[in-house]
Amino acid sequence: MTVKLLLDRKREGRELAPDEIRELVREYTAGGVPDYQMAAFAMAVCCRGMTGAETQALTEAMRDSGTCLEWPAGEYPPSADKHSTGGVGDKISLVAQPLAAACGLAVPSLTGRGLGLTGGTADKMESIPGYVAALPLSGYRRVVRDCGCTLTVQTAEIAPADKKLYALRDVTGTVPSIPLIVASILSKKLAEGAGTLVFDVKCGSGAFMKTREEAAALARALVDGAKGAGRKACALVTMMDEPLGFAVGNANEVQEAIDVLKCESRASDVETLSVELAARMVSLAMGTPLEEARAECRRKLECGDAYRRFVRMVELHGGSLEAFAKSRLADATAADVAAAESGFVQSIDARGVAEAAFLLGAGRARSGEAVDFLAGVELRVSRGDRVDAGSPVARLATATRGEVLEEAARLVRNAIVIGSDMPAPRDLVLEVVE
Amino acid sequence: MTVKLLLDRKREGRELAPDEIRELVREYTAGGVPDYQMAAFAMAVCCRGMTGAETQALTEAMRDSGTCLEWPAGEYPPSADKHSTGGVGDKISLVAQPLAAACGLAVPSLTGRGLGLTGGTADKMESIPGYVAALPLSGYRRVVRDCGCTLTVQTAEIAPADKKLYALRDVTGTVPSIPLIVASILSKKLAEGAGTLVFDVKCGSGAFMKTREEAAALARALVDGAKGAGRKACALVTMMDEPLGFAVGNANEVQEAIDVLKCESRASDVETLSVELAARMVSLAMGTPLEEARAECRRKLECGDAYRRFVRMVELHGGSLEAFAKSRLADATAADVAAAESGFVQSIDARGVAEAAFLLGAGRARSGEAVDFLAGVELRVSRGDRVDAGSPVARLATATRGEVLEEAARLVRNAIVIGSDMPAPRDLVLEVVE
Repeated sequence: MTVKLLLDRKREGRELAPDEIRELVREYTAGGVPDYQMAAFAMAVCCRGMTGAETQALTEAMRDSGTCLEWPAGEYPPSADKHSTGGVGDKISLVAQPLAAACGLAVPSLTGRGLGLTGGTADKMESIPGYVAALPLSGYRRVVRDCGCTLTVQTAEIAPADKKLYALRDVTGTVPSIPLIVASILSKKLAEGAGTLVFDVKCGSGAFMKTREEAAALARALVDGAKGAGRKACALVTMMDEPLGFAVGNANEVQEAIDVLKCESRASDVETLSVELAARMVSLAMGTPLEEARAECRRKLECGDAYRRFVRMVELHGGSLEAFAKSRLADATAADVAAAESGFVQSIDARGVAEAAFLLGAGRARSGEAVDFLAGVELRVSRGDRVDAGSPVARLATATRGEVLEEAARLVRNAIVIGSDMPAPRDLVLEVVE
Repeated sequence: MTVKLLLDRKREGRELAPDEIRELVREYTAGGVPDYQMAAFAMAVCCRGMTGAETQALTEAMRDSGTCLEWPAGEYPPSADKHSTGGVGDKISLVAQPLAAACGLAVPSLTGRGLGLTGGTADKMESIPGYVAALPLSGYRRVVRDCGCTLTVQTAEIAPADKKLYALRDVTGTVPSIPLIVASILSKKLAEGAGTLVFDVKCGSGAFMKTREEAAALARALVDGAKGAGRKACALVTMMDEPLGFAVGNANEVQEAIDVLKCESRASDVETLSVELAARMVSLAMGTPLEEARAECRRKLECGDAYRRFVRMVELHGGSLEAFAKSRLADATAADVAAAESGFVQSIDARGVAEAAFLLGAGRARSGEAVDFLAGVELRVSRGDRVDAGSPVARLATATRGEVLEEAARLVRNAIVIGSDMPAPRDLVLEVVE
């Protein structure tokens, strides 16, 4: 294959044939196409876009670069997974996956470590002492078989082309391209093998997609790509201008998820979205009418079944919730943030809160760095709450970076906008793409 | 410098600051910026373009990556050079540079080896036995001082950033971008140091720029860039649908240039264009009115001064025209091409003739390959000539590839279009950009 001619055509905005894209990915993964050619390809795609057929070919080629799992009907219940494009305080998987499992699905979630302002789902789970997110494939299958759900970190066997290309995109300014994002997300989710895929595409200041239009386009492309590869799929475009729930960090997010699972939390947005996403999984995977699936999910949450799935999942991964409860009492350095003025909370900027959490040590700047599990922001208020000047609106914690507490407090204070009027309520789900 | 953020901005079509571009080029040349980032940069420039200020910064940064020569007024006469973007049968430098030198200019031409269908000017000169195109800088200066002109191959000291970037562009589909082409051409010409630059921007089937609009845009950008760097400059956009002169190859082109210098050639287009370009150099460099400069050039050609400069230049480079005359008699395999029908020659497709010359061995597919100096096409007719079916219209020669003569003959026969009417005459110079 003459990659150069392929690059010429992509640069000119012409369409490549599926076979050409498949060969490009195969050769790149095998080391036959050098990084500089692939970087030029990625930039050309950023600038010129890709047709649906090209995106599909890229996605499937990346999926086929590694192991593709299957969850055969005889051996497993109907399989489904949800995937979030990432938001601040997004601990939804910790609730929705056990909930969907409690409704009778197999939820073989492969999830990521975070790179950015806060930890990923795998990082959050590892704030539970003993929890091993990196299971071998055999162990991963065993957990799914036993409790119906898992939060396992994605292994090197799954879509290695994506791992290689993503690292290259990260250093060549070629991350923000819908076809490349779709191929990256979908190749992994398709390789994971779940029959139903529900996407939570975040939109707003705390998300990768800043506008509703961009988010809707990504949602459409993900759903089309998943269906094109023979899966049932839908996507919700959801608001990410404000953090989900009150906790932003790692251990504190796990605690909030546990509280939601035990129906002991005030984080109604976390509960609502978890139920909605789990219900979509159940409805698509089992053919249950959506309203019925929602009712079923609410029941499974209220009766404690979802929580019991979570507890079992943690045990199977080697984690100890008892030790977790104790570790939460460990003396992290903490500080309160006081309201700057009296009034109603108009908005809480997700980006600002996330930056504070990052500063406190909750995220990692480079792959491989350690995450401070106890670091994070615990909001005390949410949108519409009445506050008095000087009253505590958030609590910051860090085990490793006491010196940044003041700067983090400033960020959080600025993120919490206080005004004289009660703000209008807002929708969490902006759009459903089917 | 965070190259990644720079790439983000270029991808979005935003303008980079001159300092950022300078640092990027400096770091790339020094090895601090990897090829994959530079490839992404080049592709982003292809897709998003560059402003005049960005192009200027890129050009100057590439110029400054190596040695910058000077031709001080006290020591040398006014310096000038002409540069062609490359055409089929383009031996103009062999005539115009000695001609301009005969008019009293210093013409310190650094020229290239060919990569493509036919050899470059340096290759052509090396078909003269003994001619050394690769002189060290000291020898190069000595030749200019002694005879006023040189055709020396560009050395590694001149614009090394261009050499590195060009090799990368060649394999990443990022060649056709006016800002990148301008920076590549100009960085070398500016480093060469001539005070006046005259560009011959070719346009048509035998040129890199296929349309007049593209060629005019490149001409404009080259002239603006050269002036922006403090040089006197102009450009001619000239027709390259048909070969220049009758000879396409290497040794045969040198012979045709010698014939033109001795006023013994029928190749009136070669003479006309050489006089025009030399006159532009003289006029700009010395402030002579253009008509006067043209008359002066014609005189210097007719009186043999230009030819004497050429002879001296060849001697100074170690070449022997006596040995060249003999080598031309060596038994290359040759074959005649006969006219397919009777009528007038309507056109001779430059691209087709060049492909035949390449097939015969006149060019090189990869840098470092040897060129067959005796290989090439000698046309017997030009546009407007009356031919009879079966009469010879071209002669092919090759020292190394006798087996391709038939295929080359087919290409040349197809390139020569014969029709019943006398074609209208055409302009050689399409546009002057000042």
